[in-house]
Amino acid sequence: MNHQKENIGVIGLGIMGKPMAKNLLNAGYNVTVFNRSSPSMDELSSLGAHKASSPKDVAAKSDIIITMLPDTHDVKTVILGNNGIMEGASENNIIIDMSTISPQITIEIAQSLKNNKLFMLDAPVSGGDTGAINGTLSIMVGGDKNIFDKAYPVFDVLGKNIVHMGENGKGQMTKLCNQVVVAINMEAVCESLILGAKSGLDLNKLLKAIGAGAAGSWALSNLAPRILAKDLNPGFMVKHQQKDLRLALSLAEDLSIPLPCTSLLHQFFRSIEAEGNGKLGTHSLIRYLEKLSDFKLT
Amino acid sequence: MNHQKENIGVIGLGIMGKPMAKNLLNAGYNVTVFNRSSPSMDELSSLGAHKASSPKDVAAKSDIIITMLPDTHDVKTVILGNNGIMEGASENNIIIDMSTISPQITIEIAQSLKNNKLFMLDAPVSGGDTGAINGTLSIMVGGDKNIFDKAYPVFDVLGKNIVHMGENGKGQMTKLCNQVVVAINMEAVCESLILGAKSGLDLNKLLKAIGAGAAGSWALSNLAPRILAKDLNPGFMVKHQQKDLRLALSLAEDLSIPLPCTSLLHQFFRSIEAEGNGKLGTHSLIRYLEKLSDFKLT
Repeated sequence: MNHQKENIGVIGLGIMGKPMAKNLLNAGYNVTVFNRSSPSMDELSSLGAHKASSPKDVAAKSDIIITMLPDTHDVKTVILGNNGIMEGASENNIIIDMSTISPQITIEIAQSLKNNKLFMLDAPVSGGDTGAINGTLSIMVGGDKNIFDKAYPVFDVLGKNIVHMGENGKGQMTKLCNQVVVAINMEAVCESLILGAKSGLDLNKLLKAIGAGAAGSWALSNLAPRILAKDLNPGFMVKHQQKDLRLALSLAEDLSIPLPCTSLLHQFFRSIEAEGNGKLGTHSLIRYLEKLSDFKLT
Repeated sequence: MNHQKENIGVIGLGIMGKPMAKNLLNAGYNVTVFNRSSPSMDELSSLGAHKASSPKDVAAKSDIIITMLPDTHDVKTVILGNNGIMEGASENNIIIDMSTISPQITIEIAQSLKNNKLFMLDAPVSGGDTGAINGTLSIMVGGDKNIFDKAYPVFDVLGKNIVHMGENGKGQMTKLCNQVVVAINMEAVCESLILGAKSGLDLNKLLKAIGAGAAGSWALSNLAPRILAKDLNPGFMVKHQQKDLRLALSLAEDLSIPLPCTSLLHQFFRSIEAEGNGKLGTHSLIRYLEKLSDFKLT
């Protein structure tokens, strides 16, 4: 343990939170963890983390508390609810929410914390489980700049493209803008693949021919090959992307911004959910195009 | 002049054809050119090219004849029409059409040429004027493999990602798949920017935060910065992309493939044409989103 470093709490040890906690341990931080189910806590404990009995208990043992949870309600409950972070935290503690949740609720939670002399950063990430494991996440941060600066060494362990976007909420807003692009780029890949497939093109050659030019995208380079390999495992689950698109469309509604293709993609992905396939990766969108065309990629 | 190298003809000295002809001259080829208007011919002549009086005349002086023309009708006329390439060409000449045109008409033209012991390659490109100038085009080629191999040294001067896709027509089909992705990726960028702008985000920071991860694309890296700089000059003109989307949707119709977002994008870009702005770059799509939202990026 390095006594120069802050004590870090991590709440939520899922596909993202667990590898992030490991990276913090590996970087020499003193880490206290809490998760609703215990196997992940046991695993982290065996690597040197302390197990806590509640979010309040995590907060009591930490200077910086990270939350990585499924949705808005979970974050609000863990921070402001019974046995929550606010009950255990000490003055000037920093709560970093790295989940993707409502920007508006983020602003409200940050205000509640501020009223109790606690600081919040909203710091959602992009890069998936691979990014979490390799410590190469993109991190989009909202909150006071001096708090961002204090927390920077922690972000530096977890990611590599770390941008302070402005006040609380703006990290979340940035993430939602990210998800709009991610969802629509996936449709671009799928419409191209279905057209190419029924044209009789060799789809591997197609990807080679178009991937290096103006059609290039992360989705084309990383997810199209998985489609061709018939591997629809996540990556990033449809049901989680649907939650993010719901948040993006809600923000857009509040702002009176029509987002025609984002809105359509939310509906298209619902067809994947209707099949009971919400736990497939987002590239399972190809199944929707296949259904529309009554034609399957071979 | 290098007597080892074939004589090359180039018909169509527009924004793409002119720099391509220059690159062939620089590579030591003997180049004969034809264009409907003469200033481009004079410019190429001053660099060492021979001026021809018609496509037939180009063909009579060339072993390999490249066409780089606006649309299907132009290519058909220049190859099969009066004073066209077929009238002037000698047995075993190779006609390379690098325009983006109908795959079906391409197949018909190739058959007509074959009946006259002439060979055709359809070899549309991606990479824009910059790619043409720098010789870094992506080239997607349809036609006999042995003809592709013979023409390869010429492609190698003009591009750097050169893929033989199969028989005639498949180069064009690949290009249309490319354009589907290009058009939809542009919408992804614009929906994200309008949402970010009205959320009050610093859009330069937004691009930095999301450009390196799962939202990354050529459009986000290359065209979004032009939008922020309020530079809507082409790149690639809306009216040319509209022609390509029309071809893609026609191919899709022939194949009974619904392409919902490609179809929408074709309509969205029509709104830019309705303003009389078809000569702006495709990133002027942001104007459509701005109109929908009654809000302008600042």
